[in-house]
Amino acid sequence: MTRVGVVGAGPAGLMLANVLAAHGIDCVVFERASRAHIERRARAGLIEHRAIRALDEYGLAGRLLRTGVRHGACEFRLAGRRHTARYSELTGGRAHYVYPQQELVKDLVAAFLGHGGEIRFDTPVTGIRDLDAAPRIEWAGGGMSFDVVAGCDGAHGAAVRSVPAGALTVHEYRHGHGWLAVLAAAPPSTRDIIYALHPTGFAGHMLRSAEVSRYYLQCPAGDDVAHWPDARIWAELRRRLATDDGWCLREGPIIEKAVLDMRSRVCEPMRFGNLFLVGDAAHIVTPAGAKGMNLALGDAHELALGLVDRYAHGDDRRLNAYSATRLDVVWRAQEFTTSFLDLLHNAIGTGRSDTYSDRVRSAIVNQITGTGPRAQDFAESYVG
Amino acid sequence: MTRVGVVGAGPAGLMLANVLAAHGIDCVVFERASRAHIERRARAGLIEHRAIRALDEYGLAGRLLRTGVRHGACEFRLAGRRHTARYSELTGGRAHYVYPQQELVKDLVAAFLGHGGEIRFDTPVTGIRDLDAAPRIEWAGGGMSFDVVAGCDGAHGAAVRSVPAGALTVHEYRHGHGWLAVLAAAPPSTRDIIYALHPTGFAGHMLRSAEVSRYYLQCPAGDDVAHWPDARIWAELRRRLATDDGWCLREGPIIEKAVLDMRSRVCEPMRFGNLFLVGDAAHIVTPAGAKGMNLALGDAHELALGLVDRYAHGDDRRLNAYSATRLDVVWRAQEFTTSFLDLLHNAIGTGRSDTYSDRVRSAIVNQITGTGPRAQDFAESYVG
Repeated sequence: MTRVGVVGAGPAGLMLANVLAAHGIDCVVFERASRAHIERRARAGLIEHRAIRALDEYGLAGRLLRTGVRHGACEFRLAGRRHTARYSELTGGRAHYVYPQQELVKDLVAAFLGHGGEIRFDTPVTGIRDLDAAPRIEWAGGGMSFDVVAGCDGAHGAAVRSVPAGALTVHEYRHGHGWLAVLAAAPPSTRDIIYALHPTGFAGHMLRSAEVSRYYLQCPAGDDVAHWPDARIWAELRRRLATDDGWCLREGPIIEKAVLDMRSRVCEPMRFGNLFLVGDAAHIVTPAGAKGMNLALGDAHELALGLVDRYAHGDDRRLNAYSATRLDVVWRAQEFTTSFLDLLHNAIGTGRSDTYSDRVRSAIVNQITGTGPRAQDFAESYVG
Repeated sequence: MTRVGVVGAGPAGLMLANVLAAHGIDCVVFERASRAHIERRARAGLIEHRAIRALDEYGLAGRLLRTGVRHGACEFRLAGRRHTARYSELTGGRAHYVYPQQELVKDLVAAFLGHGGEIRFDTPVTGIRDLDAAPRIEWAGGGMSFDVVAGCDGAHGAAVRSVPAGALTVHEYRHGHGWLAVLAAAPPSTRDIIYALHPTGFAGHMLRSAEVSRYYLQCPAGDDVAHWPDARIWAELRRRLATDDGWCLREGPIIEKAVLDMRSRVCEPMRFGNLFLVGDAAHIVTPAGAKGMNLALGDAHELALGLVDRYAHGDDRRLNAYSATRLDVVWRAQEFTTSFLDLLHNAIGTGRSDTYSDRVRSAIVNQITGTGPRAQDFAESYVG
């Protein structure tokens, strides 16, 4: 029997598969979409220090380190003024890399296949059975049993759906805001990521590549994309990102736009029987602070090391501690993203649309862009 | 003409008067109440490092250091478990002293009068005129002009009322909760101050003396004290403060109870013409984190040093910077108390009554009772 079945070939599933392969533990990865599809799907793009270190340990960070762009600072904008948080300087040189998720997926697919690994593309998993014994992954016309299954297929995937109702405690929170997420074929207008706190709402300018940029605009939760014609998007970005020193926004064709409801979710524990939940299957964080993919990579790495301990050393302790180990990290990340969101959002709809709260937010920005312990805390939490 | 008129003989007015007296700058203090009244009035009771250092510099901390109780840690309670923030260890031994405000007032009155200073008790100031020139303090049947007047008479005092409407920007915020503040003739049931985060609301056990203790219970804003018979207060304190290890609450007769609406307020700037606003006259903070009296002492110290520069060295720069210097400190304190309040309060009425937010608050408590940068930041902000 193949030891490990992995459902989902996103960053988490592929990271897990690669680490297992490096240790000679056999596994099969099931992915509902095609290889071409997952290698093109634009999602996250900011990879943090801890994740890069783990990828590099397995030789998976070569192209990332060669072509990704290193980032050690981010910029806050408030009332037309710029404030820079130099988080790399405060953390002994730790940094983020801007590297689009689909590029990382390409690297991880190539590495795993190069190892002789097996990925069954175009194979939507319909369910997972016998979670208490040898879990069986099923798809249209087939099924396969494993010692252990890793559910890396997201919040709505087969893994979560296969757990009996009520078996996991689900903590959910709606933050009461939406973000309009925009991807445009426009070169970056900034060297550092920008977080702008504006009276009409947060605006973010994220980085993806020399040709493509990601922007966010705070909007009402559940807002309709139809309310956001391209011209309004650019006007609102120009307005919220404006500085006193004449900074200029470079525009380009909008490739993609969607309203994201700011939601958080954590399943406890991150295991049911011999099914382990990894990444988005176990927890959703908001995009604020870019923790989602990084947590997923961290889960996968930890689970892989637990499985290595089991299969290489007959020691189940790390595997049995997987859920508790990761939940500690997950809740810290949730706390970080929740606080960060509270900082970024102006008060629309929260009862905090007032000059008092604006000054309080300004006091926070002054601290995290300084050099004291608050800046240190932000730096370490942000850079990962 | 006497140089400085001080309105209000609270900690701020008396600190200012003492520092001026030490530098030979003449001033007169006006106080609406009697000496016996202000020396008995129970208010704050936690004096922070920075304030003690300033008092000590002028020989005003003798009895405080001799009889006050040094505190370098506080306790958080969460789901029956205790978590201690050892803030003194993280700040090179800085600490709070528990010393009731009325005791400090006694010391400051005695010192100032011993210096030959003049305090006009039982003299309610009715208004202050000519703020742009030589401000004139008026009371029933008399008036006196000064070079400079310091308004140390609180948020509803004559100083604030004498500023023309609209001349100052007032930032106000209501946090949406009340605290039932209780003073009881009960010995402390704890060595360290306790902040309990409970599903039914925050409870605090503060320290005053060997015979008297202060407690807080989160309640709806605007709640009626009549809803809180003594038996309900003790039952609710026992419930919210309970621990798994059988901790016991010592009871005693309740001396005083009142509902405090959690409000914040800042006036900008803290000066109008030759009237300077000090302490509560310029800003109100919530009791969370015990910043109110400490900010007032800090304002008074800074203003005194500005006046010393003016009168001893003919240099107005520090005096002219008074408002900006203090507003930086005030907004950091507002930010601290607002965050602290958000941590202490459960979600009653805020839409955050949910297990997600409870876990997030637990993640914060774990961090501030640890040793990382978040604990460092809390320690430095809390100890002052």
